[in-house]
Amino acid sequence: MTSLAVTFADIESAARAIEGVAHRTPVFTSSSLDAMTGAARLYFKCENLQRAGAFKFRGAYNALSRLDVAARARGVVAFSSGNHAQGIALAGRLLGIPAVVVMPKNSPAVKVTATRGYGAEVVLYDPATQKREEVAAKYVDERGLTLIPPFDHPHIIAGQGTAALELLREVGELDLLLVCVGGGGLISGCAIAAHALAPKCRVVGVEPEAGDDATRSFKTKTLQSVHNPQTIADGARTAHLGDYTFPIILQEVADMVTVSDDELRAAMKLIGERLKLVVEPTGALGAAAAFTKKVPIEGLRVGIILSGGNLDLA
Amino acid sequence: MTSLAVTFADIESAARAIEGVAHRTPVFTSSSLDAMTGAARLYFKCENLQRAGAFKFRGAYNALSRLDVAARARGVVAFSSGNHAQGIALAGRLLGIPAVVVMPKNSPAVKVTATRGYGAEVVLYDPATQKREEVAAKYVDERGLTLIPPFDHPHIIAGQGTAALELLREVGELDLLLVCVGGGGLISGCAIAAHALAPKCRVVGVEPEAGDDATRSFKTKTLQSVHNPQTIADGARTAHLGDYTFPIILQEVADMVTVSDDELRAAMKLIGERLKLVVEPTGALGAAAAFTKKVPIEGLRVGIILSGGNLDLA
Repeated sequence: MTSLAVTFADIESAARAIEGVAHRTPVFTSSSLDAMTGAARLYFKCENLQRAGAFKFRGAYNALSRLDVAARARGVVAFSSGNHAQGIALAGRLLGIPAVVVMPKNSPAVKVTATRGYGAEVVLYDPATQKREEVAAKYVDERGLTLIPPFDHPHIIAGQGTAALELLREVGELDLLLVCVGGGGLISGCAIAAHALAPKCRVVGVEPEAGDDATRSFKTKTLQSVHNPQTIADGARTAHLGDYTFPIILQEVADMVTVSDDELRAAMKLIGERLKLVVEPTGALGAAAAFTKKVPIEGLRVGIILSGGNLDLA
Repeated sequence: MTSLAVTFADIESAARAIEGVAHRTPVFTSSSLDAMTGAARLYFKCENLQRAGAFKFRGAYNALSRLDVAARARGVVAFSSGNHAQGIALAGRLLGIPAVVVMPKNSPAVKVTATRGYGAEVVLYDPATQKREEVAAKYVDERGLTLIPPFDHPHIIAGQGTAALELLREVGELDLLLVCVGGGGLISGCAIAAHALAPKCRVVGVEPEAGDDATRSFKTKTLQSVHNPQTIADGARTAHLGDYTFPIILQEVADMVTVSDDELRAAMKLIGERLKLVVEPTGALGAAAAFTKKVPIEGLRVGIILSGGNLDLA
C-alpha cells in the first residue's frame, strides 16, 4: 500500500472549506427504481443540483480557496469547455479571484455565455492550430496566473471527495458506490472518503464504452489513452487518467465497467421519468451501470453520484 | 363575502392527515432565473417530486383518510386518465382501501401500468360509446364504492391547499403565487391557504390558451366551458370549473391569465436547464406565466407551484 497524494483528512478539510458555499446536495430515492433493479435501496447523490450544475464546483472552490493572497490577486487560469470552466468561473467570482478560462472557439455559445455570466474572462483558441495547454501556459508565464487543472490536482481531488463524504454521512454504510470516470478526480476523492467512512463499500467506476481508457488502465495496471472518443458523455472524453488519480484508482477502486451510449440514454430517460431530474450523459454513467446490472446490485445498498445536469435541451 | 365550502382550518386538518405520508416537497430557487426575470426571488414548490409524481396525491390521501370504516371496506372509485388516477391508487394502497380507476381504453399503456402498479383495479371504457361518469356510477350503485371526484370536493380542495400552506410556512410572505388551473382544485385550496397565511399575496391562476374556460369564467363571473381543448397541458383540459371551485376562485383569486403551448415548452426547457427538473406541461403553467411576464413579477417574491412531473420521455 503506497502513500497517496490525498488523505481523508484532506477531504474533511475540503468539506470545511466549501461549507455554506457549495450546496449540500439532496439525496433522492425511488421505491419504483429499487423494485425495478432489485437493489435494497438506491441512493442518488444529486450533484446535478450543485452550484453551476455539477460536482466540479466542489474541487474548484476548494482549490481556489487555498491560494495565498498574492496568487489570489494575480488570478487563475483553466482550460475546459465543460463543467470545470463554470465551476472555476463561479468559485473565482465568489472568492474575488480573477479567472481566465481557455475554451475552444467552436464551443457552444451557451457554454461561453454561461462561463462569462459567472464572471470569467473567456479566451477562445483554435483547436486546429493551437494547443489549449500552450494557450493557458502563456497566461501563467505572462500574467503569473495559477493554472487550475480539471482533475489531476490534490485540492481538486479532495474537493470532489466531499460528495461521497456527504452521501455516506447522510445515509450511512453502503455496499457499493458507483461513480463516473473521466480524468478520475471525482472517483479518486470519493474512493478515499468511502475507504474511511464505509470500509466495506466497494467503489466501482463507470465509463462510456467508447472512452474506456480508465477501464483498460485499471485492468492492465498500465496507463492507457483514448483519442477524441465518440460518446455523448462529453465529460468522460478525457484522454487518460492523471499522475495523481491513476495510483489512487489502482489502490482504492474495486472495479471498472463501461456502458454504451444507448444505455446512457435509457438511464437519462429513467432518471427523468422516475426521479424527475435532468442529468447530462456523463452524469448518468453510474445510474446506467446499476440499471443495466453491469454491476451486481441485488439486495445491496447502493450509492450513485449523479455528477452533473448541464444539458442543452434545445 | 359568501361562506365557502372549504376553510383554512380544513387545510390545516388536511396537513395533519397527510403528515409523514405525503412528501413535504422541496422548494427550489435559482439566482439565474431571478436575474433573468427581474423577480426579487422565485420560489418553486416541487410537486413534481410529490409521491406518484403530482400534487394530486395530497387531496386523494386526505379524502380517502376521512372515509368511515364501512366505506373503506367497500372501497372507492375514480375516473381519470391522469395524475388523479395514480394519486387515488397509491392512497388506496397505503390506507388498505380497494380502489377502482375508470380509464379510457386508449390510455397510454404506461399510465395504465402505473395505476395498476400502485395496486388499483383499472376498468377500461370506450370513450366513443360510453360516458366515464356512467361507468363509475355503476360501481357506486352495484358495489357501494365511494366516488372520489378529481377536483370538486371539499376534502380534495383542502388536501391540495397543503401545497401552498407548506410553501408559505417555509419561505414566509409572498407577493404573488402562480398556480395552474384545470378544474380548480389546486388553486382553490392554495388561495384559501394564502388568504390566511399571507393576506397581501395575490393568487393568480394560469391556464393554457386553448383551454381558457376558467379565465373566461373568472372574467365574466359566469361558468364557461371548453370541449376537448387542443393543448399539451393535458392536466388542464378539464371542461369547466366545479360547483365548489368556481365560487372559491371568484372570491379568493386575484386574476387569471393564459399561456400558449409554445410558451409552455419554453418554460419546461428553462426549468430543465436551470432547475434540472422534469415537469409535465401542466406543471409548467405557473412558471410560464412568470417567464413570459404575463403577470408582473419585477421586484416581487413569487411562489410558483410546479404541479407535476409525469411525462413520457420516449
